[in-house]
Amino acid sequence: MTGQWLAIDWGTTNRRVYAIAADGTVVASERDDRGILSVAPDGYAAEVADIRARFGDLTILCAGMVGSNRGWADLPYVPCPASVAALAEAVRWVEPGRTAIVPGVTVAEGRRRDVMRGEEVQLLGAVSAGLAPADALLCQPGTHCKWAWMVDGRIDRFVTAMTGELYALIGKHSLLSAQMTGPAAPGTDFLAGVADAADGDLSARLFGVRADAVTGEGAIGHAASYISGLLIGVDVRERLGAGDHAYVLADATLGGLYRAAIEAVGGRATLIDSQAAFVAGITQVWRLIR
Amino acid sequence: MTGQWLAIDWGTTNRRVYAIAADGTVVASERDDRGILSVAPDGYAAEVADIRARFGDLTILCAGMVGSNRGWADLPYVPCPASVAALAEAVRWVEPGRTAIVPGVTVAEGRRRDVMRGEEVQLLGAVSAGLAPADALLCQPGTHCKWAWMVDGRIDRFVTAMTGELYALIGKHSLLSAQMTGPAAPGTDFLAGVADAADGDLSARLFGVRADAVTGEGAIGHAASYISGLLIGVDVRERLGAGDHAYVLADATLGGLYRAAIEAVGGRATLIDSQAAFVAGITQVWRLIR
Repeated sequence: MTGQWLAIDWGTTNRRVYAIAADGTVVASERDDRGILSVAPDGYAAEVADIRARFGDLTILCAGMVGSNRGWADLPYVPCPASVAALAEAVRWVEPGRTAIVPGVTVAEGRRRDVMRGEEVQLLGAVSAGLAPADALLCQPGTHCKWAWMVDGRIDRFVTAMTGELYALIGKHSLLSAQMTGPAAPGTDFLAGVADAADGDLSARLFGVRADAVTGEGAIGHAASYISGLLIGVDVRERLGAGDHAYVLADATLGGLYRAAIEAVGGRATLIDSQAAFVAGITQVWRLIR
Repeated sequence: MTGQWLAIDWGTTNRRVYAIAADGTVVASERDDRGILSVAPDGYAAEVADIRARFGDLTILCAGMVGSNRGWADLPYVPCPASVAALAEAVRWVEPGRTAIVPGVTVAEGRRRDVMRGEEVQLLGAVSAGLAPADALLCQPGTHCKWAWMVDGRIDRFVTAMTGELYALIGKHSLLSAQMTGPAAPGTDFLAGVADAADGDLSARLFGVRADAVTGEGAIGHAASYISGLLIGVDVRERLGAGDHAYVLADATLGGLYRAAIEAVGGRATLIDSQAAFVAGITQVWRLIR
């Protein structure tokens, strides 16, 4: 175990632990639902003690919401443009020499503020692992979809869109909920939504789904796919156009929807492995602080 | 009571009854919560019997959701362009010679369908009463905000935006709910939202409200007002621009927010009385069918 250490991607709901060898190889990993919402404010030391009991008495480097005001320690954000070196410099040791946390990143553009905690490690890792070039647009779809513009290997700027949360709100609580049966799929109805997103008139297009059902005309097809296409279509069209290339860090299902929308607007999408990106990124930070 | 009759604006949640004299004057009215959601499918005849017991044994003309599949009778929609004459021709007598219902209106533009039931009477009435010109843009804010383009006194086309419903969803069920304290007001923060709506990037602007709170920078001010400004701003910017004039049928509170947004984009807004418009519209229909 010489040179071995532990990395933890510690989010709001989930947690993933990696045992990493000196050469950067992942030798073991586990995923559980011990995200910060499942841990009491004073429970973090016991959590990492449990992890060491399973993986060995190793040094731990964490990233994600564990570094927020609801986590183990509230670390200030590193401003954009943010490099691996800047993150490493701002790492906080919560157990001296034993356990450290990587900070999040922030950006300010006019009145708009944006923040991330955890995604910055994936973004920087994707570039350092060669999964994406040093100058690239990266996309992390999800409840809060992040788009980051990498310049010279740093996070130059980024924007978070509530795309996934809006889809969930409409699916669970709106007039349209009853129509949104089954999961969205990247077929004809999804692409119709992406096309209709071009006019930017989201809230009128949404009511159109209702009117389509009321009139019984069926012009819209599968409502969940169409609405997913509308929302992802608006998101994608705001970020890129014909000829642009985006690197998407997501599983095949959600990544497939984003890829279909990106291609529909004339862009190109490459799906990359977000776990590999995380491991590469946190290993880069590790090498700068150990 | 010679020549007197009853008009009912019978919506989903509320109902308003007007006793109208032969000359079109309202001699009595009442508002209650006996909208169609409070009435059993076979309960409508008893409802109008109760109304006649209070107002007199008069002929009744209804409009609104009472003419839907969840109401007393499911009337087909009249297509745009829709005139008072077309509505009058499609009136359905549910109690022959005693009680009739005015149909709703529909429009189809490409894949988009739209429908209204009840608003058409207000729209046509606003013009016939001289509250708005025969060629005008009319706006009916609410849960589902309707915008109608009147041409030559007819409803030429219209669009419904889920603006109010999205605001309610975000206020009740989203990550931003806790920040949205108190009602929206048409001040600086609302106008900042209207301004930020210009880039069309609603879901990123919404996440910005969260990031503003997390970073503690307070760049956004009163979140409810800012978010209301964003949503109404997107809605207004889709419909009109500098120099355009909209006639808004709404109460002073919601109408005031729409007026502020319309003026912020360089348009002009006139608030008009939606009850007066309804009475004028249904009186026009009445005169054609009696």
